Amino acid sequence: MSQVDTQLEELKSEIEAEIPSTISITDVKYEGPELVVYTRDPKEFAGDGNLVRQLASKLRKRITVRPDPDVLSRPGEAREKVMDVIPEEAGVEDLDFHEDTGEVVIEAEKPGMVIGRHGSTLREITREVGWTPEVVRTPPIESSTVSNVRNFLKQERQERREILERVGRQIHREEMADEQWVRITTLGCCREVGRAAFILNTAETRVLVDCGDKPGAEGEVPYLQIPEALGAGAQNLDAVVLTHAHLDHSALIPLLFKYGYDGPIYCTEPTRDLMGLLTLDYLDVAAKEGRTPPYDSAQVREAIKHCIPLEYGDVTDIAPDLKLTFHNAGHILGSAVSHFHVGDGLYNVAFSGDIHYDDTRLFNGAVNDFPRVEALVMESTYGGRNDYQTDQEDSERRLIEVINEAHEKGGKVLIPAFAVGRSQEIMLVIEEAMRTGKIPEMPVHLDGMIWEATAIHTTYPEYLRDDLQDRIFHEDENPFLADQFNHIDGGEDERQEVVDEGPSIILSTSGMVTGGPIMSWLRHLGSDQDSTLTFVGYQAQGTLGRRIQNGWDEIPVSDFGSNRDGRGSKLTLKMDVETVDGFSGHADREGLMNFVRNMSPRPEKVLCVHGDESSVQDFSSALYHEFNMRTFAPKNLETFRFK
Amino acid sequence: MSQVDTQLEELKSEIEAEIPSTISITDVKYEGPELVVYTRDPKEFAGDGNLVRQLASKLRKRITVRPDPDVLSRPGEAREKVMDVIPEEAGVEDLDFHEDTGEVVIEAEKPGMVIGRHGSTLREITREVGWTPEVVRTPPIESSTVSNVRNFLKQERQERREILERVGRQIHREEMADEQWVRITTLGCCREVGRAAFILNTAETRVLVDCGDKPGAEGEVPYLQIPEALGAGAQNLDAVVLTHAHLDHSALIPLLFKYGYDGPIYCTEPTRDLMGLLTLDYLDVAAKEGRTPPYDSAQVREAIKHCIPLEYGDVTDIAPDLKLTFHNAGHILGSAVSHFHVGDGLYNVAFSGDIHYDDTRLFNGAVNDFPRVEALVMESTYGGRNDYQTDQEDSERRLIEVINEAHEKGGKVLIPAFAVGRSQEIMLVIEEAMRTGKIPEMPVHLDGMIWEATAIHTTYPEYLRDDLQDRIFHEDENPFLADQFNHIDGGEDERQEVVDEGPSIILSTSGMVTGGPIMSWLRHLGSDQDSTLTFVGYQAQGTLGRRIQNGWDEIPVSDFGSNRDGRGSKLTLKMDVETVDGFSGHADREGLMNFVRNMSPRPEKVLCVHGDESSVQDFSSALYHEFNMRTFAPKNLETFRFK
Ligand SMILES: [Zn+2]
Ligand SMILES: [Zn+2]
Ligand SMILES: [Zn+2]
Ligand SMILES: [Zn+2]
Ligand SMILES: [Zn+2]
Repeated sequence: MSQVDTQLEELKSEIEAEIPSTISITDVKYEGPELVVYTRDPKEFAGDGNLVRQLASKLRKRITVRPDPDVLSRPGEAREKVMDVIPEEAGVEDLDFHEDTGEVVIEAEKPGMVIGRHGSTLREITREVGWTPEVVRTPPIESSTVSNVRNFLKQERQERREILERVGRQIHREEMADEQWVRITTLGCCREVGRAAFILNTAETRVLVDCGDKPGAEGEVPYLQIPEALGAGAQNLDAVVLTHAHLDHSALIPLLFKYGYDGPIYCTEPTRDLMGLLTLDYLDVAAKEGRTPPYDSAQVREAIKHCIPLEYGDVTDIAPDLKLTFHNAGHILGSAVSHFHVGDGLYNVAFSGDIHYDDTRLFNGAVNDFPRVEALVMESTYGGRNDYQTDQEDSERRLIEVINEAHEKGGKVLIPAFAVGRSQEIMLVIEEAMRTGKIPEMPVHLDGMIWEATAIHTTYPEYLRDDLQDRIFHEDENPFLADQFNHIDGGEDERQEVVDEGPSIILSTSGMVTGGPIMSWLRHLGSDQDSTLTFVGYQAQGTLGRRIQNGWDEIPVSDFGSNRDGRGSKLTLKMDVETVDGFSGHADREGLMNFVRNMSPRPEKVLCVHGDESSVQDFSSALYHEFNMRTFAPKNLETFRFK
Repeated sequence: MSQVDTQLEELKSEIEAEIPSTISITDVKYEGPELVVYTRDPKEFAGDGNLVRQLASKLRKRITVRPDPDVLSRPGEAREKVMDVIPEEAGVEDLDFHEDTGEVVIEAEKPGMVIGRHGSTLREITREVGWTPEVVRTPPIESSTVSNVRNFLKQERQERREILERVGRQIHREEMADEQWVRITTLGCCREVGRAAFILNTAETRVLVDCGDKPGAEGEVPYLQIPEALGAGAQNLDAVVLTHAHLDHSALIPLLFKYGYDGPIYCTEPTRDLMGLLTLDYLDVAAKEGRTPPYDSAQVREAIKHCIPLEYGDVTDIAPDLKLTFHNAGHILGSAVSHFHVGDGLYNVAFSGDIHYDDTRLFNGAVNDFPRVEALVMESTYGGRNDYQTDQEDSERRLIEVINEAHEKGGKVLIPAFAVGRSQEIMLVIEEAMRTGKIPEMPVHLDGMIWEATAIHTTYPEYLRDDLQDRIFHEDENPFLADQFNHIDGGEDERQEVVDEGPSIILSTSGMVTGGPIMSWLRHLGSDQDSTLTFVGYQAQGTLGRRIQNGWDEIPVSDFGSNRDGRGSKLTLKMDVETVDGFSGHADREGLMNFVRNMSPRPEKVLCVHGDESSVQDFSSALYHEFNMRTFAPKNLETFRFK
């Protein structure tokens, strides 16, 4: 009997000792980080609302109870009873019974009403039918990404359970190492913005944190080939952790599966869906630009299949000596500060990922409160001496001015924006400004993946700022459903119509003007002196966006806005060019300093990454001088030992 | 045709273009770093003394010319002619004809006379017989190590050539990496003395520098298992470089062959022989102490077979992007400062190994003059604030005092000493003091491997200080042959005799009192108040030597002086305990500072290693403050990127 089986036997005995003797346990298994308990008496188990919670705290495990397949009521019969228990207003759209696990997936417009106070309705369901309910939200705006992911996972259910069981056994394997140490190796994202990728390595475990590309420098990928990373074989990685879905963190995650990786990807649920959306788009863009993408959509599906979604605050075993906890990072939907607890109190290290420290319209500010943390790997995008951004209030006022000025001239406002992140923030600003009469009513066109990304936001309102959640739950107040928002889904014809009509606002990808429909909009509007090109986000070095900001007015255009077809035709940019900062998803210098200043506890060591060379060095030196901590501005390919 | 074969074809053409058309080239091959040129006209080749030198500088390769086997004269015939050419006084002891390579190995008491001025006698030999002569010295004191190594290599000649050819093709392979960078990973020897092991890693190449154990802490071995080292397979190492033979640098070199390493070990010739001696002893000691050694003598033989000896100053290609040059380190016989030139002018890094900066009786001081050097990995054994040693002159005076005092009391002087290194230095001091009447004539007993180590020293006088070389070449002046030196080769009986006789001096291993015959001497003499225990070398933390220095007087003894049999019997030490410093093989704080102060050029970065935690930190901070360089006191398991 393997060590894991012995462990499971012991856990079974412990559980039996803990619960009333009337409740029988038939099997105990790991599925990923969860301990799944099979019982012939699911109804009795559900009878006591505290039982699972008590077990979880006693065993220090995440516990799921499932009915033994033998005792399941028939789905047809169960369906009626379930519908009886759930209040009508919950808006149940679908019930999906899985006889292999005794789970019933309930899709509803208002999941909260299916769950009930402290889960009371869920327990009621189990008491009635024995099945274990799981609830998902029907997206208020239809999202093809969300439905594709859900359908795919349903279809791959069997393989997914096998993956989870294998991962579960790995996580709970016996520790082999006879020493303890903690190291971080930098594979990218040092003294640069892009190709985020780090190895967290203990004597026992190796974890890859993020695996992104570098915008504006396609050849510069993370140093995955070195021995500390995948050089000794991708199967030697224990886990991959993805802080958020932006491509500079996620683009090369699917590539890992081409290299033979077969383990878990820990991320939030929205990050999983957004990663699907963005990496498929990444493949699309590569194909359009005539580049051979490093992987194809099959690997994106593999990646999604291997995702283990975690919620903010869940403390999760991901290896015998590692616990991972995600916290809100305030940067984009699902973005997470990733906290690792190593060993049994040995060491704690947090990766900030990308953060926004203050509240924005979309998100609560980044969490910087931890039980313990000795080392911090911290983004420094705006860590430079002078990287202070305008206050959100002033930024909004300025954006409104820009819109009004363009409107007066009869022109249009063209805003390059990341589909995921600032687009929704800008949408909220514009929606309010129109509703309150600060700008005239006019169409707001959303091009590229912005509409789809917005739909994903409305699927996961728990990840949005508190008051925004409430508004989304009420259809008539959901700001993203406002009439003026128009999804550009008619291609060039529709764009031409927009150009021919009066003043409007256009939000279009890509956010750094490196391709996508923004190229087409520039071709249409670039020589229109009455229109305004308005940057609202960070423009990386080497991107066309940055060059335009720096005053370039000769820009390459082509029929399809893609490099491949750009046969050297140029356009002289005559639009007004405006930059309205303060909408960044990134904390500015002050926000970054405040994140550390108010951090509890204050870490001893900080690695400053995810910033241009001068930004990381300025920020590193500022942290050192202000807080007297050991700070570093690492290079790529270095290894730091913490313990 | 492989890229290497194409390259060899081109080299052949270049050579043919360069030499008179009367000389035919039949083949051109790599053997390790050498380019071997086979000719049907060896005599004509040898006719022009400058030809090989010209070719070498033109092709920037080390070149060896060998006769095509077809044109060799018969050994019997050649033997006579060779003996006719070499002057009688050379003392030829053996001629060994190798028909496979056309080489004749000439062993002589005075190799210089076989070589002749600028190699004139060697060329004369080739002109006469066609064979390529190679010369080795007959050890003035018979050394079983030297003769074992030579016999072994003779016997393994065929396999060795195969190894060399394989290594040669590896060295001259086409560069694959499309980027360039330089990193060093610390596998041991950081904030500690012992288990020296570093990885020098470029985008193209991975080299292990040293692989030692930690005296006094047998369990603490270099972190070879991590992916940057052997984790991705030992065959991924391009080369091993050994700075010197001390076990804290060499002990685990043979282990690499157990892990599947099959590549070259670059070291000096004396380092090769001393490594053989010391690692075999290491196995012996482990067996005596009841530990299972991590490898056995078969691996020591493998290691010796894979050695490629380099001389000080030879610039040698060891990989497509790496040139290695050894320089005298002044520490022990054959010890080398190892200088790596990376890429084509990309970067230069020197590993000091262990150094002594000032001249000693045995060695010239360490070389610190390089064409270029940006980074230095530097030993810091005596780098601490107060680690100033007594001047050699004062130390010698004090040692003489200690000897005279003991002699007056009728006692003995027991000196624990490393077989290799300080023993010979102390022998030179004692020999001179007796010869000049500063101490009375009395026997000097050499126990453990000291005699054998001394014999090896006399085999390689080129590696000793200039004036000492001269004395060794004259049998009647060779200080190591002085009458008073007695080799203890009669075991316990002989030791008992020594104990029963009058005053004498005893040098015995181990140098840190961790085992070996010194344990037996302590049992014999430990309670003799008239005798003196005199430390002349560094005592590492955790060793019995250090504990005695610190005042312990309860020492474990047993019948065989080994842990296994030490059934708890204790001895109360009543001998005088003296420490005479200044004989260390290591530079003291001043010497270390001077090494850097006078270094040409001054490096930009220094990693301070091979010292206790406070020593490396003191030294690192001193270098920073005095010379304003970037200095580091790394931990084990870290990686530094230099370029
Ligand atoms: Zn981001
Ligand atoms: Zn980022
Ligand atoms: Zn970003
Ligand atoms: Zn040494
Ligand atoms: Zn050493």
